[in-house]
Amino acid sequence: MTQNRQVVIRELPRGELTNDHFELRDGEMPAAGEGEVVVRTILMSIDAANRAWMQGATYREAVKAGDVMHTYSIGEVAESKDDRLKPGEIVAVEARWADYVTVKAKHAQKLPDHRPLSHMLSILGIAGKTAYHGLVNVGRPEPGETVVVSAAAGSVGIFVGQIAKALGCRAVGIAGGKDKCDWVVKELGFDACIDYRGGNLFRELKAACPNGIDVYFDNVGGEILETVLFQMNQKGRVVCCGAVSQYNSTAPSGPRNLPGMVVVKRLRMEGFIVMDFADRDEKATQELMAWVKEGKIRVVEDVVEGLENAPRALTGLLAGDNRGKRMVRVAPDPV
Amino acid sequence: MTQNRQVVIRELPRGELTNDHFELRDGEMPAAGEGEVVVRTILMSIDAANRAWMQGATYREAVKAGDVMHTYSIGEVAESKDDRLKPGEIVAVEARWADYVTVKAKHAQKLPDHRPLSHMLSILGIAGKTAYHGLVNVGRPEPGETVVVSAAAGSVGIFVGQIAKALGCRAVGIAGGKDKCDWVVKELGFDACIDYRGGNLFRELKAACPNGIDVYFDNVGGEILETVLFQMNQKGRVVCCGAVSQYNSTAPSGPRNLPGMVVVKRLRMEGFIVMDFADRDEKATQELMAWVKEGKIRVVEDVVEGLENAPRALTGLLAGDNRGKRMVRVAPDPV
Repeated sequence: MTQNRQVVIRELPRGELTNDHFELRDGEMPAAGEGEVVVRTILMSIDAANRAWMQGATYREAVKAGDVMHTYSIGEVAESKDDRLKPGEIVAVEARWADYVTVKAKHAQKLPDHRPLSHMLSILGIAGKTAYHGLVNVGRPEPGETVVVSAAAGSVGIFVGQIAKALGCRAVGIAGGKDKCDWVVKELGFDACIDYRGGNLFRELKAACPNGIDVYFDNVGGEILETVLFQMNQKGRVVCCGAVSQYNSTAPSGPRNLPGMVVVKRLRMEGFIVMDFADRDEKATQELMAWVKEGKIRVVEDVVEGLENAPRALTGLLAGDNRGKRMVRVAPDPV
Repeated sequence: MTQNRQVVIRELPRGELTNDHFELRDGEMPAAGEGEVVVRTILMSIDAANRAWMQGATYREAVKAGDVMHTYSIGEVAESKDDRLKPGEIVAVEARWADYVTVKAKHAQKLPDHRPLSHMLSILGIAGKTAYHGLVNVGRPEPGETVVVSAAAGSVGIFVGQIAKALGCRAVGIAGGKDKCDWVVKELGFDACIDYRGGNLFRELKAACPNGIDVYFDNVGGEILETVLFQMNQKGRVVCCGAVSQYNSTAPSGPRNLPGMVVVKRLRMEGFIVMDFADRDEKATQELMAWVKEGKIRVVEDVVEGLENAPRALTGLLAGDNRGKRMVRVAPDPV
């Protein structure tokens, strides 16, 4: 009998999310009903948004106490009761932190056989597409403009800066810790990266952006957003991709200069989710793959091994200890 | 000898602006130099933005202590040393709170002879164009959508709601005081108007907007913006036109749900100034005049008589005691 381990939410966090909010349990091995498939999980995407899902309904249903934790996964079809999918095919699914899940076949997205499969969760997955669509279709930078991105060493940030460079822009990162900042500049080719923990964000940002900031790709919100807003150029664009500084807080505070700066500088602040640009995914994939081939984008991934380590993979991500796209490997890529 | 009264800024305000920050003085009668004109002031526009100019450089130079207060005026050319303009012509100018000012002829905008001249400061002036461009070109509502506007009884707000109705939208105002709200509904035809001082803004807004809010034309920022953001629909648009709640404050606070709501609801928040859409002014004027003719827009103006009353016209405006476009009449319309 095959094992189906599951990671369940014991209780929803009120403040900081910890590993104790989760529990590993043995679940029943699922079977496919009519129109369904059983999917064996291979890789699970770990994202700051997972934490937001616990705050209530967002662009998707909320995660509740007692749920097997929700995730976006890549897996292999293990059993099928639908003509659309055959065992052995690779699919992307809205799944759970579990060895096996059952989903409606029509909700599973068949993936091309692109190896390593991990690329489908990083450069060619939500992280890469979020960076691409957010920067190209929301921020719309012109060559020569200055692009700033926070969480620069994160799953999305590493691609935002590299895409900005590929588009002929100046790319400046903001990240936590000197090591991360050095890594972003030396390994990923950003023009500069500022350690927000250094205590001189305003001054260092000003020095790194002598012509002001045209596009800010905001992954964090809060005080960093406030500081960046003061240095935005007229008609600048703020791509609102996340507010991680607010997720772990019960008393969030907004940037004190909003909406003042938006009015005075005629800024555009715009939120998006990657699905909003599904009709442009094909173009995104082509451009991203071309940039990887040309050596303009380095694909960096942060893989945590083992389903049982999913809680610390997420809490660690929220604490900022990842470099590049974080994911959990539950099973090896099929041969 | 002709008198040239001037209202000077004695000192810049740190907190609330009062009449004592200004002083009426007798100035010298100016003379036009080469390429200049002397303009006799007829009407001065009084705007919340005047207060913002005192906070430092915005989209224009800052106002300083000792300056004759800056303003946007309509006047008559009294003397000209430039071929472009002749005495007796009507012009709009960046001027001062004074009977007479000297400006470069190339900076004076010749106006069509549209009477009453006050319309050039309200429906056909910055107020009307701000309402039009902000709603039509930034907010871009579709027929059937719900448009909410704050400072609904103000110079811009009265037109925003009426334009929304003309476009086939549901128009809901927010204003201070029951009398103002009743006036906005009964006299201007808004579908509803909520008194934010009533203490139930969230609940009353929800009742007045059963289908949520698609476009919010924000004239105030602060807590009202925060409350409205919670009720915005997915892909809603926030037109950022002012932040009057922040002008009179030394410790401004931003909406606590920013940028969270922008991310979760994929909102677009965009600031603008009316000059950004100068290329579409002609279309705006035509549409606005047509709506006035058809009775879809009522032009309401709030005229304070006398240059010496300009300080209280502005401080009163900031306290919210105007209904419609406030202006100061310095001299009668020429015959």
